[in-house]
Amino acid sequence: MADLIAPRIPKGTRDFLPKDMAKRQFVLERIKSVFINFGYNTIETPAIEYAQTLLGQYGDEDSKLTYTFKDKGGREIALRYDQTVPFARFVAAHNRRLPMPFKRYQISPVWRADKPGKGRYREFYQCDVDVIGTKSLLAEGEIAKVINRVFESLEFDRFVIKFNSRRLINSILTRLHIPEKRHTEIIRILDKLGRLEHAGVAKELASVLPDEAIVELVEITKVQGLNREKIAFLKEFDTKEIDDFLEVCDGFGIPGERVVFDLSLARGLDYYTGIVFETFIEDVDIGAVCAGGRYDGLCSLFSKQQFSGVGAAFGFDRIMLAMEELNMFHEIKLNSRVLVTYFDQETLTNSLGMLNDLQKAGINAEIYFEPVKLGKQLRYADKKEIPFVVICGPDELKRGEATIKVMKTGKQKTIPQNQLTAYLNGYNYGANR
Amino acid sequence: MADLIAPRIPKGTRDFLPKDMAKRQFVLERIKSVFINFGYNTIETPAIEYAQTLLGQYGDEDSKLTYTFKDKGGREIALRYDQTVPFARFVAAHNRRLPMPFKRYQISPVWRADKPGKGRYREFYQCDVDVIGTKSLLAEGEIAKVINRVFESLEFDRFVIKFNSRRLINSILTRLHIPEKRHTEIIRILDKLGRLEHAGVAKELASVLPDEAIVELVEITKVQGLNREKIAFLKEFDTKEIDDFLEVCDGFGIPGERVVFDLSLARGLDYYTGIVFETFIEDVDIGAVCAGGRYDGLCSLFSKQQFSGVGAAFGFDRIMLAMEELNMFHEIKLNSRVLVTYFDQETLTNSLGMLNDLQKAGINAEIYFEPVKLGKQLRYADKKEIPFVVICGPDELKRGEATIKVMKTGKQKTIPQNQLTAYLNGYNYGANR
Repeated sequence: MADLIAPRIPKGTRDFLPKDMAKRQFVLERIKSVFINFGYNTIETPAIEYAQTLLGQYGDEDSKLTYTFKDKGGREIALRYDQTVPFARFVAAHNRRLPMPFKRYQISPVWRADKPGKGRYREFYQCDVDVIGTKSLLAEGEIAKVINRVFESLEFDRFVIKFNSRRLINSILTRLHIPEKRHTEIIRILDKLGRLEHAGVAKELASVLPDEAIVELVEITKVQGLNREKIAFLKEFDTKEIDDFLEVCDGFGIPGERVVFDLSLARGLDYYTGIVFETFIEDVDIGAVCAGGRYDGLCSLFSKQQFSGVGAAFGFDRIMLAMEELNMFHEIKLNSRVLVTYFDQETLTNSLGMLNDLQKAGINAEIYFEPVKLGKQLRYADKKEIPFVVICGPDELKRGEATIKVMKTGKQKTIPQNQLTAYLNGYNYGANR
Repeated sequence: MADLIAPRIPKGTRDFLPKDMAKRQFVLERIKSVFINFGYNTIETPAIEYAQTLLGQYGDEDSKLTYTFKDKGGREIALRYDQTVPFARFVAAHNRRLPMPFKRYQISPVWRADKPGKGRYREFYQCDVDVIGTKSLLAEGEIAKVINRVFESLEFDRFVIKFNSRRLINSILTRLHIPEKRHTEIIRILDKLGRLEHAGVAKELASVLPDEAIVELVEITKVQGLNREKIAFLKEFDTKEIDDFLEVCDGFGIPGERVVFDLSLARGLDYYTGIVFETFIEDVDIGAVCAGGRYDGLCSLFSKQQFSGVGAAFGFDRIMLAMEELNMFHEIKLNSRVLVTYFDQETLTNSLGMLNDLQKAGINAEIYFEPVKLGKQLRYADKKEIPFVVICGPDELKRGEATIKVMKTGKQKTIPQNQLTAYLNGYNYGANR
């Protein structure tokens, strides 16, 4: 016999056990149901794409983190790095068959040859929601509303959607006599304001800007206060996009305190052209849990036709970490509601009949596979978090009855078998689902 | 500007548009809900594993079809080829934390560097359901019942679960004086009976068996008739496993005509050790849509501990093809139920309020993003298969009313806005979900 192979998995990847999956599916279902409630449909693109499709779409750094390989025919293939570039490719390929504006959500794994660390994986899920094919600011408002509803539906109390305006930033930089072609570079440095001190950012800016511009720029980004106070402070610049966005958020009924104008937020990525936003959970220090904004050139590498849109990507794994940290998973249940015990060969047919009745009534149920001691069968129910155990030995069978044991309390009750389904459906079942 | 990149995807991979996804999700949800109803929990393993974990687990032919590549650290990585080997690795790694018997389902994409063709893809989904850690024949019965329920719940009328017994085959081969070490080889050839004529199989057997054994073996595999007639014909061999399996299927209430003993079915794979089965849809010629059986050495390459189990893999893409061919997708709907039109800036706030009320009542609804002509907004609703359109211009707004247009009939009705949700919930809504 050959040596055993260690059952290891690559660093930065994970196995998920049933309980992990129950939590993950709970969160994904909540997120999905918000997307669906707002009229978003889902699509799917392959996990493997031609390398040419993915490489060069991102910065050099991202390209380095993309897994690539040659297939058996010598073609360069890459694993999905994010959902945005495949979406752009998808829109370029299929836009004639899509309703416009096109509203889609997509939840799938992506792969990055990154250094693994806390909350940083080589295989992880992204949840993206985008509307493309409209320049209407209602799109920004709707995406903000979706974000608000997602975190509300996950029962986060304290979170904020910070936003900024690319148009406003450009207006400030132009006023400081910074030529337009340098704006992207400056914005990339400004984006570090969330992580570096102002002094650190000023130092980085020193290599690209004259001293007096830096002083003025850093002063401006230090603006504090309520949205309207910040806007008043910046009144000499182009704040129209900010004003309009706040108005549309108000129209969508997003609570005012949730939407916070933050001039220090710039989003490093090049492709945003309007409003940009990042969502933060207060009380948890894990960075942005959702980010996005308005872009114009989505398909520019694949098509002459341009599609403007607004999108947001939810950091699913960070949301999971935040919910674990805030102990928000107390109600997660596994599937199975009832274990029918296997008493002996004589009672088996009757037990299979009860099982069938329960399942057909929509109650998730299972039978223990072997007629071992009751204690062992109960330990199985316990380990699987099955709340009810149905026991029927020869005596109960003779009387057409069965005993229900409630695992949580240890109490048991003997009732006619034909009342089993009604009893279990009535037993505080809603709360236990 | 750089040349445009063609928005192509690798052969054997697919993009799925919203309508495709709606069909796929409908089928996956039905399959999943059966698994869950029987107390199966889901797990997840990474799509990328160490190549060593996957290669050499399958035959040489399978290994050739596994996508492998070196990661940035020079480690050999492979893409998931099926869900069985990763499951074995998972069980070897985590069995102490799992309830035993362990019942799991898993639905995820797999990749094969295969020649693409009809129903043959390089990226496709597998749906596996397995129970491990028990030798009880109830496990075989339950998996057969799950298969029966899956195809019933998808509303297939005519399908059969063909099965055979590895123990019976061995007993026949032993009687023909074929040494045990050659059984696997013979079984591989016999497995071709589904595809080759008996004469073709006899020819292949000629290289490994004496003539009289071939004649007898081929005669035996030609047995026809009802299950009990075939069993009677084979009474001199070990048919206990067959008898017991039929009895347990009966105990589970699987309709007798669905479970068909077929001696010509052998499953080419080496690792089955007991009952094996394949499910076929009558009226559609696409081969088996589900296959599986009893195995003993699941984790043998990863662990000294042995786990016996029963599993089935559903051919999701074949099921999709069968359902398309039999025109079974007539009721599939996209998400969105209501489009609220955007009349003008004055009525917008009111329209957003109606939208919010509908969404909060659990009705999937959306607003058109631009105040363009009604005709264009209606065409959008039409293209997205949205059944109801809510229109509110200045006149309706003054009276606190809105007009509902039913897209299918073209009929419209003006009602008070505060009755909108109740009206739409009542309007044959259940049937339209």
